[in-house]
Formats: sequence, structure tokens, C-alpha cells
Amino acid sequence: MNFSSKLIEEGVNAFASLPGIGKKTALRLVLHLINQPTEVSEQFSEAIQKMRQGIRQCSKCYNLADEPVCIICKDRGRDQSVICIVENIRDVMAIEETNQFRGLYHVLGGIISPIEGVGPADLTIDPLVDRIAEEDIKEVIMAISPTIEGDTTIFYISKRLSAHEVKISTIARGVSFGGELEYADELTLGRSIIARMPYRTKED
Amino acid sequence: MNFSSKLIEEGVNAFASLPGIGKKTALRLVLHLINQPTEVSEQFSEAIQKMRQGIRQCSKCYNLADEPVCIICKDRGRDQSVICIVENIRDVMAIEETNQFRGLYHVLGGIISPIEGVGPADLTIDPLVDRIAEEDIKEVIMAISPTIEGDTTIFYISKRLSAHEVKISTIARGVSFGGELEYADELTLGRSIIARMPYRTKED
Repeated sequence: MNFSSKLIEEGVNAFASLPGIGKKTALRLVLHLINQPTEVSEQFSEAIQKMRQGIRQCSKCYNLADEPVCIICKDRGRDQSVICIVENIRDVMAIEETNQFRGLYHVLGGIISPIEGVGPADLTIDPLVDRIAEEDIKEVIMAISPTIEGDTTIFYISKRLSAHEVKISTIARGVSFGGELEYADELTLGRSIIARMPYRTKED
Repeated sequence: MNFSSKLIEEGVNAFASLPGIGKKTALRLVLHLINQPTEVSEQFSEAIQKMRQGIRQCSKCYNLADEPVCIICKDRGRDQSVICIVENIRDVMAIEETNQFRGLYHVLGGIISPIEGVGPADLTIDPLVDRIAEEDIKEVIMAISPTIEGDTTIFYISKRLSAHEVKISTIARGVSFGGELEYADELTLGRSIIARMPYRTKED
């Protein structure tokens, strides 16, 4: 691109350094900000900087938090005896969105992946084991993606927790609701037949 | 979206206030910045703020500039007798990209559009007329989009310039190079037949 301004070039490069934003999109964003009053850019920059400087990890569940303990761990109205283990904060948000889970979380910060050089020590598995040992946890739900790495991680954690008296479950896997059978992948469809469930009517 | 952090919510809202960026993309950008060292966010914010505060309009051509006069107007190697009139800075960049024009520009800051309430007084037409009167301009090229508003703008400017001895031209319109006739719109194709050009071989 042929910028006649060094400042614009730097602004475009700043935006284009973000994932999924190319030079053309970056230029559109820069020109938008230039067309707005200076305050708009100031507020934008401040929000980003304030966020990055203020954000921290919850000391209990490793979810992102504004304070030392996140608002989910703080919420005494939630079931303190169930922990849902997830890979990252995005999964916490997705599960919270469903409104179907009222327990606590534990964010691993990734999954075991020898190819990417991520071992158990890189994840928050030790603190999880400590939590299970110290708190009165009855159930641990593994809400981890059904991939080879995910299954390895689940297996590893279940081994680590085997010394403790805690129920371990995984989220249900199968054909998605509203999904058409013919479009389901073979593995999912095959497993969903093996793991078939008894049919129940409302009268049961 | 269910943010368990006020700071993340503010960061997401900041990004989502930009055109073409939705909440999901904004969250991806925010999580990317959180995963990077604090300095990355600081540099990003500073680049945006520095750009917005430093950017100004060239006092001659109204192109965006880092200094009172833009680097195109400053360049004495360019043809000072030809002015290319464009709608906005994006058009300047597009034409500069072609490397086919070595004259100066004049950025209108929009086009006349009664529907959007943009009149001649909202554009930099008066300063353009002053430039033509004061400087030794031989030709004015209208590089304005061939729309109803664009044609109105061209007509208005040409009327305003009629008192001055200056050649007025518009960029060529027709079927694009490499374009297939069958996909060209009717208007373009029709006009390109009316405005047909004599065929020349290299020997002419």
C-alpha cells in the first residue's frame, strides 16, 4: 500500500498486527477513527490499555478476572461442589451462555499436546488436584473438546484424580440437536450409536 | 455474551464499536491481546492515539498528512500543473498505487449528495477554485465515481471552473481490462460502444 502519511501507516500496521485483520481492513478502521473526533480514539485506546493492565487470572479457577478472585468463584449462590474443567475462557463463556451449569470452573489454559510442546506442567492441573484435595468437591465435569489431545488430557487428569473420592464425568457427545444425520461425521454418528440412550417419554 | 469480567466487556465493546467488527471478532482480538505481553497492548494503543492526534489535513490538497503540507504536494518532482480531483484519501491511495499519475491531488472530502445532506459548501470546492485561480494549473482530472452523485459533483465543479482557463477531463470509463463483455453491466457496455475509440496498432 502506498501511504502518503507515516502516521497512517503506523496506525494501519497496529491494526494489521491483530489476528484476522489484513491491511485493507486495517485501513478502513484507521480512516473510520480519523473521521471521528479525537476523543473516540482516546477512549478506544484507553479501554484497550486499561483492560490489558487490569486483567488477571482468578487465583482459584484461572478464569480471567478483574479482581484476585473471579465473580463466578465469588458467587456463593453457585454449587461449590461441582467443577467444570475447560480448556480456556472462551469455553467458560460458551457454557455460561447456556445457563445450564451453576457450579464452578477450572480453566486449564490449554490441553496436553506433545506436538505443540504443551505438557501437563504447562497447564493448571496441579492447582486443580490441590483444589480437589482441599475443597469439598463431589463431581468434576470434563468439558473438553473431543479430539485426540482432549481425550489425552481427560485421561491424564482422571488418573491424577483417581486417589480422590470424586465423581468424574464428561459432557455428552453425539449428533447435535437439530443436526441432520446425513451431515454428521462418521465418528460422531458411530459413537452415538454405541453410546445410545434409553428412549423416555414424558410419562416415565 | 456472558462476560465474567467487566474489563473484558469494555475491551470487547471498544473493538466492536469499529465498523465491520462484531462481538465475536472483538472477543478474539481481546483474547489475543490478553495472551500477549502488556507491552503489545501498550504499543498498539499508543500507535492509534499518536496517529489520531498527529494526523491533519494538507492545507493545499486536503489529503491526510503528518505535517501542514502533505508529501505529495511537497514533492517538487511531481507535475505541479495537473490536479486530480478525488472524493477521499482512499482514492488518492488507489491512484498512487497505479504509478500512472505524477501530478497533484485535491481531496473533496465527499461528493454532492442531496439525500445525505452534503452540499457544495461541505466539500473543499471553494479552496479548489482558489487553487486554480492562484496557481498555474493547466489541467484538472475528475477521478470521481461514475454515479449520479459523482456526475452531479463533476458538473458542478466544471461550472465553477468555467471562468478559468483550465482543461477539464474525466477518467476513462468503459469495460475493465480483462473483463468479460457478458458480465459488464448494460450501462457501461452501452456507453463504451457510444464512446468507442479508434483502433490503433503499434505502427500508427
